[in-house]
Amino acid sequence: MDIGTTTWALAEGYVPSGSFSQEHDLVSHEALCVLNAGKSDAEIEILLYFADREPVGPYRLKVPAERTRHFRFNDLEDPEPLPRDTAFSSVITSNVPVVLQHTRLDSRDPHIALLSTVPYSA
Amino acid sequence: MDIGTTTWALAEGYVPSGSFSQEHDLVSHEALCVLNAGKSDAEIEILLYFADREPVGPYRLKVPAERTRHFRFNDLEDPEPLPRDTAFSSVITSNVPVVLQHTRLDSRDPHIALLSTVPYSA
Amino acid sequence: MDIGTTTWALAEGYVPSGSFSQEHDLVSHEALCVLNAGKSDAEIEILLYFADREPVGPYRLKVPAERTRHFRFNDLEDPEPLPRDTAFSSVITSNVPVVLQHTRLDSRDPHIALLSTVPYSA
Amino acid sequence: MDIGTTTWALAEGYVPSGSFSQEHDLVSHEALCVLNAGKSDAEIEILLYFADREPVGPYRLKVPAERTRHFRFNDLEDPEPLPRDTAFSSVITSNVPVVLQHTRLDSRDPHIALLSTVPYSA
Repeated sequence: MDIGTTTWALAEGYVPSGSFSQEHDLVSHEALCVLNAGKSDAEIEILLYFADREPVGPYRLKVPAERTRHFRFNDLEDPEPLPRDTAFSSVITSNVPVVLQHTRLDSRDPHIALLSTVPYSA
Repeated sequence: MDIGTTTWALAEGYVPSGSFSQEHDLVSHEALCVLNAGKSDAEIEILLYFADREPVGPYRLKVPAERTRHFRFNDLEDPEPLPRDTAFSSVITSNVPVVLQHTRLDSRDPHIALLSTVPYSA
Repeated sequence: MDIGTTTWALAEGYVPSGSFSQEHDLVSHEALCVLNAGKSDAEIEILLYFADREPVGPYRLKVPAERTRHFRFNDLEDPEPLPRDTAFSSVITSNVPVVLQHTRLDSRDPHIALLSTVPYSA
Repeated sequence: MDIGTTTWALAEGYVPSGSFSQEHDLVSHEALCVLNAGKSDAEIEILLYFADREPVGPYRLKVPAERTRHFRFNDLEDPEPLPRDTAFSSVITSNVPVVLQHTRLDSRDPHIALLSTVPYSA
């Protein structure tokens, strides 16, 4: 089933450097969930925007046909690691329609806080 | 009143296995709220997508005319129980227009955290 | 400025009966924020939908031209008080375009949890 | 890349006066993230709406081409400071397409709570 769109934008982004725990599930993170419900593999590109310098990217991700992947912005390494404690935005494009959701888990304190949005779709 | 649409997608899904409490209200869960404001009963089908295997489903739910139901992904059992601690996505289709909302209550810690979104509608 | 639309739906609704505090700001509540940025007063009607009985309403609210009001579902009294600890949905209609947002503050525990969405607009 | 739209509305707004910490990151705040992914600088105007008085504004902000800025409603000072503990709404307009996201961090208690939405786009 083809569902979704090919251009998305996320104005909010911020990964705190602190976490009370280094357990993978509970490290402070921003997750990008990508659903590719279609029959073709999705090639995804992410461009990161910052306050005071040129955009960085593209970062490249793949989501096979009829699969979902939950990425973490924390794990973006190439062309350069995502800075911590820094505001950023992102534009996500795909060669086939996908559906996105964005979630932050903030564990600077042991009592975690969560937020989630469906990004703006163009 | 006919309000809503018939195809929805939710890229984010994750039910932690841990909860500080086994009280029903406070068990960690992902809820899917479905409003059927129309005059005909809604037959709902859910397909679940995973990172590394074929989609599972359809799971079937009903929401009578002019009623709302708050389902939990936790409770999906047929054709197979929802795995815990596993990222998933879902596509929800209905034979009549419905409105959806998705909410997670995370009670791995006694100080609960909440998130909620209106899913992507196609 | 005319901004918004006249029909909105909110699939999620749930007011916990418990609150650690009876201070008004910190009582568990569901808020409905209504922005009327236009030049005419808005007459708002809310219909509530439940799992196992007929819809209830309309509840009537007013938002003057170029004003905002933050209502609480908790405070709905006429035609009947909103039940606690009960899942509900709502359809909100207005005679002029308005913009809505929905926020829940859960203070069953002294460490509050928050969620917020922009409802589905038809 | 031109992505976004030029008129946005945010029905919810509320900055608590209390914070357990005066550390900048952890002061209770409402953030407005603005992504300008286009090639022209964005001139942004914010009008604030209140329950019982005339709208206030415009507040003026700039976001250079291909940059993002995370503003705080807390910091709005001209034409007048944003009142605390007061419900407000906002209409945000831009001369070029931008993408917005709204986030609240509530730190009245040391265990922070978060909410986030993509505002209504007209």
